[in-house]
Amino acid sequence: MPTQLLSAIDVRVLQDKATRLRIDSVRATTEAGSGHPTSCASAAEIVSVLFFSVMRYDPRQPGSRSNDIFLLSKGHAAPVLYAAWAEAGAFPRERLLTLRKVDSDFEGHPTPRLPFVDVATGSLGQGLSVGVGMAVNARQVAKTDQRVYVLMGDGESAEGSVWEAAQWASLHGLGNLCATIDINRLGQSQPTMLQHHLEIYRARWESFGWQALTVDGHNIEELLAAYDKARQTTDRPTIVLARTIKGKGFPGIEDQEHWHGKPLDKETAARVIGHLERQLKGADENWQPHLPETQAPRVAPVTAVSMKPPYQPGGKEVATRKAFGDALAALAADPRVVVLDGDVKNSTYTEEFQAKGPERFFEGFIAEQNMVGMAMGLAARGNIAFASTFACFLTRAADFIRVAAISKLNLKLAGTHVGVSIGEDGPTQMGLEDLAMIGAEPDFTCLYPADATSAWQATRLIAESSGPGYLRLGRPNAPILYGPDEQFSIGKCKVLRRGERDRALVVAAGVTVFEALAAYEELKKAGIEVRVIDLFSVQPIDRQELAASARAAGGVVVTVEDHYAHGGLGDAVLSALASERVKAVKLAVREIPRSGKPKELIDLFGISSRHIVEAVRAALG
Amino acid sequence: MPTQLLSAIDVRVLQDKATRLRIDSVRATTEAGSGHPTSCASAAEIVSVLFFSVMRYDPRQPGSRSNDIFLLSKGHAAPVLYAAWAEAGAFPRERLLTLRKVDSDFEGHPTPRLPFVDVATGSLGQGLSVGVGMAVNARQVAKTDQRVYVLMGDGESAEGSVWEAAQWASLHGLGNLCATIDINRLGQSQPTMLQHHLEIYRARWESFGWQALTVDGHNIEELLAAYDKARQTTDRPTIVLARTIKGKGFPGIEDQEHWHGKPLDKETAARVIGHLERQLKGADENWQPHLPETQAPRVAPVTAVSMKPPYQPGGKEVATRKAFGDALAALAADPRVVVLDGDVKNSTYTEEFQAKGPERFFEGFIAEQNMVGMAMGLAARGNIAFASTFACFLTRAADFIRVAAISKLNLKLAGTHVGVSIGEDGPTQMGLEDLAMIGAEPDFTCLYPADATSAWQATRLIAESSGPGYLRLGRPNAPILYGPDEQFSIGKCKVLRRGERDRALVVAAGVTVFEALAAYEELKKAGIEVRVIDLFSVQPIDRQELAASARAAGGVVVTVEDHYAHGGLGDAVLSALASERVKAVKLAVREIPRSGKPKELIDLFGISSRHIVEAVRAALG
Repeated sequence: MPTQLLSAIDVRVLQDKATRLRIDSVRATTEAGSGHPTSCASAAEIVSVLFFSVMRYDPRQPGSRSNDIFLLSKGHAAPVLYAAWAEAGAFPRERLLTLRKVDSDFEGHPTPRLPFVDVATGSLGQGLSVGVGMAVNARQVAKTDQRVYVLMGDGESAEGSVWEAAQWASLHGLGNLCATIDINRLGQSQPTMLQHHLEIYRARWESFGWQALTVDGHNIEELLAAYDKARQTTDRPTIVLARTIKGKGFPGIEDQEHWHGKPLDKETAARVIGHLERQLKGADENWQPHLPETQAPRVAPVTAVSMKPPYQPGGKEVATRKAFGDALAALAADPRVVVLDGDVKNSTYTEEFQAKGPERFFEGFIAEQNMVGMAMGLAARGNIAFASTFACFLTRAADFIRVAAISKLNLKLAGTHVGVSIGEDGPTQMGLEDLAMIGAEPDFTCLYPADATSAWQATRLIAESSGPGYLRLGRPNAPILYGPDEQFSIGKCKVLRRGERDRALVVAAGVTVFEALAAYEELKKAGIEVRVIDLFSVQPIDRQELAASARAAGGVVVTVEDHYAHGGLGDAVLSALASERVKAVKLAVREIPRSGKPKELIDLFGISSRHIVEAVRAALG
Repeated sequence: MPTQLLSAIDVRVLQDKATRLRIDSVRATTEAGSGHPTSCASAAEIVSVLFFSVMRYDPRQPGSRSNDIFLLSKGHAAPVLYAAWAEAGAFPRERLLTLRKVDSDFEGHPTPRLPFVDVATGSLGQGLSVGVGMAVNARQVAKTDQRVYVLMGDGESAEGSVWEAAQWASLHGLGNLCATIDINRLGQSQPTMLQHHLEIYRARWESFGWQALTVDGHNIEELLAAYDKARQTTDRPTIVLARTIKGKGFPGIEDQEHWHGKPLDKETAARVIGHLERQLKGADENWQPHLPETQAPRVAPVTAVSMKPPYQPGGKEVATRKAFGDALAALAADPRVVVLDGDVKNSTYTEEFQAKGPERFFEGFIAEQNMVGMAMGLAARGNIAFASTFACFLTRAADFIRVAAISKLNLKLAGTHVGVSIGEDGPTQMGLEDLAMIGAEPDFTCLYPADATSAWQATRLIAESSGPGYLRLGRPNAPILYGPDEQFSIGKCKVLRRGERDRALVVAAGVTVFEALAAYEELKKAGIEVRVIDLFSVQPIDRQELAASARAAGGVVVTVEDHYAHGGLGDAVLSALASERVKAVKLAVREIPRSGKPKELIDLFGISSRHIVEAVRAALG
């Protein structure tokens, strides 16, 4: 089919369409007064060939999961993406002129406010990982014949995440993935590292296991031939290395520095548009889309899962990370659940899921950006995608996590080995800023269970909830606090100790819950009663119960967390109680920790029961 | 010299030392009850050859800047590093048995508590970037003949940051940099992606512009020859691809899975140590170090800099990012200052520094992990290293920033284009979680200036202060609030409006300072007086003034920030006022924003003067 299709295409049609993409890109950015028309111009033929010859999609259903997938990794070229969909007939062309306006969904960089954007782009170097996730979804999970096309800029190929994605895609022979680099030679502030040295690009991509095809990116025939060859190559991904000119088709602007991210003024725009319009051959009036030949399968039905945690209070101690693995293994019965690892599956216990659902388990190796990026791609295609590693190494993927939040994806992160309570491995292995980093993202659910039962339920709740979620999980074994029938909800805490004469409220989570309970006992012996809350849900937070408990306890609050002092549980609690005129003490890790035994470190860094007792006593004067 | 030296070395000496490194690694980890002896064993010959033949250093001065540099990027092999320094005579061997104890500086992964560790390692994939920074420092800034040796694991070479570093090092022809990959085939949870396919490694590194040498990593002669060839190759960096066996020399454990990160039990350790001891030839008793031939230059004297910002209240509006560039240009007179960019120097205005100090300006291209990693290496060698890009893209380097904090480096970050006030580019370009991410790190100074004068002074203060620092900088032009003689200090805020009848305290920073001042005027018209603080220093925070002002204002506090609600300025203020029983309202960006005009977005997302007025009125009931 491909060759037949290609021969039927009139090259002039595609050239006319490319020219109109340029015109629309200039018009929209000049109207907006900002944007990146020259970055659109270099990609015009590439986008034209992909949208109007190569890809199979239904322009009337731009959000359909049966369509081939196009990811504009170089998100600053958004106007050319929007222009392509308008040209395909998805919406009226005049809407392009709302670009970058506050009441328009045609934002400066693409976001999922638009039906044809699954994942926001514009933080460069992310699109390929997302595309890898979508390609492996098509091949291995959804089992469709969809192809995934990613368009990158040359500057962004300096991002290491691109090479993480490249190595993974070739290791897995993703023949349904085809990326293009728009090698226009010029970055934002100067020429790129490799300028037009396509031979270096080629050697690098080939060494990373890709079929690498070099083309003149403004030559329609060469592009068609390359994408045809890509389609025929099924055992590995293809990279089309397209030599292009920034500002191509804009007289006086082509290939010039200092034109990145600058719209043309009205006069220049009129001159350039006139020049471009004179090149139109009127050749493309009868264009028809290539519709998808097969429909994406319906979302697989959910198999009923017996969801009751198996731990008993008083029984064997279990780490929350282990309970996470146990719960994931139970969730493997749900075909929507996929799990990604960063070569720590024997520490995070995601190997338990792997044993149950090996075809939905993806080993990401030590490359967390790509692990999370692939999970984003999988999530964007209807899966419930868990990505897990030590919490400290999730910081590697902070930018991806940020964009996942912007994209409101069903991305589920689990960070294990949090806090000083990991012990001997030392500070580089301790996740102590994860609640700050992830909790800052709006609508990112953050659960921090204290025991195995609540960790098991937290895993289930995160899987069942919509949107991005984070599980904060500890390394040490912990006693079982809750029975198998205990109910947990997102946004609800657990009041573990409550009395009529409570004089302070202690809010803890994770490992510090046990410190708080020990402090309770000690304070009780001294005749001081305190309320103890296991926060469980850091975000959203149980403002109502916290406020009621704080009031009942005379407005004296002590928070205690195995996290740095800024942006953690304590700040979340203080923020929830902002209007309550409380007197609060925040116990947290306030300096760079060190190696040692977990118990030693909990004490050394000021978050042990002893410190809680002291804080309560001091607060009560 | 190299060849002569090498021929004089008795290979048996180096083999004996390798064997003793193995013995010491087993002893220490078995004593500690945790650690990674098998990862030490694979590297024993590499470390032996580097420490006892190749490198020039003075074991009596392990922290000397004249020494050749060794970076153990695979930080989990810490015991072999410690053993090497003990073997070299830096300290008594018995101290190795304090490994991982709370009162020992021999932590689970190397940290700068030890004199021979500049930068903490153990978050894999960071060492090469740090090494690149140190190598370019030696060649271009300090101008010494130091050589930099980085030892990586094979698993970590999957990290994209490694390839970011690789491309930069070859682009700059860093012949004084030699990295080794200990290719022991086994990761933590399974075999690595490339196992023992050295030909793939070789093709990748060669395509990235390195001299790639493949060796048997347990063969002393091959290693000596490779490092000799590396030393003779001055126009590009060298990678030694060493085929090794995990657990080499440990009978029954060699090349076996499931031995990562596991100490030998006492019985096994005794058996293995016995086996190893029988291999000792007693050949190395007369080893002498190769001392550095030249001394590192003294730190260059600081040239007096005229440090007075040039802006006038009532004069032309200037963006804080522009003032940062202006101040950096003035700081170029200080030879300790180096600046790194991520291809946005025309937006961050670091191009002004480049014009003044081109030899101390490093274009990092779009590869923020390596940019920050290089800055860490430069900072660790006595420079004041500024790394700058859009604040949102600093999230790319979150893990490096975390480790820089652990290492207490003189790393100075500047994040521009913060908040919704960037306008039309949309959410992927907005830094809205930077204060959460960076502020969480202990002892990371965070300054957030509102106008050009304070931004200029903030840049100077950050440069002059010790340890890591962050400047939060805005995109829009802003009025000049402060005169050239205004004094600023880290940890001190500015009270902009203060009266006898203040009924609320409004705390703002950056762009919201102007909103707060507008709100002040409107409230004043309505007869409500409020105190207005420009926070300026988010961390450390001016607790004293905030508390005094909050008390004076009846304990009613409104914070307003162009940052997400969690982990930002508001949380920092609430935390500072935790014991004050205030009633606070936190105005912040609480949902995913969108494109639009800056002023529109400030209003749409709830942080404009109108919202401040409403919040004050509501709080006062």
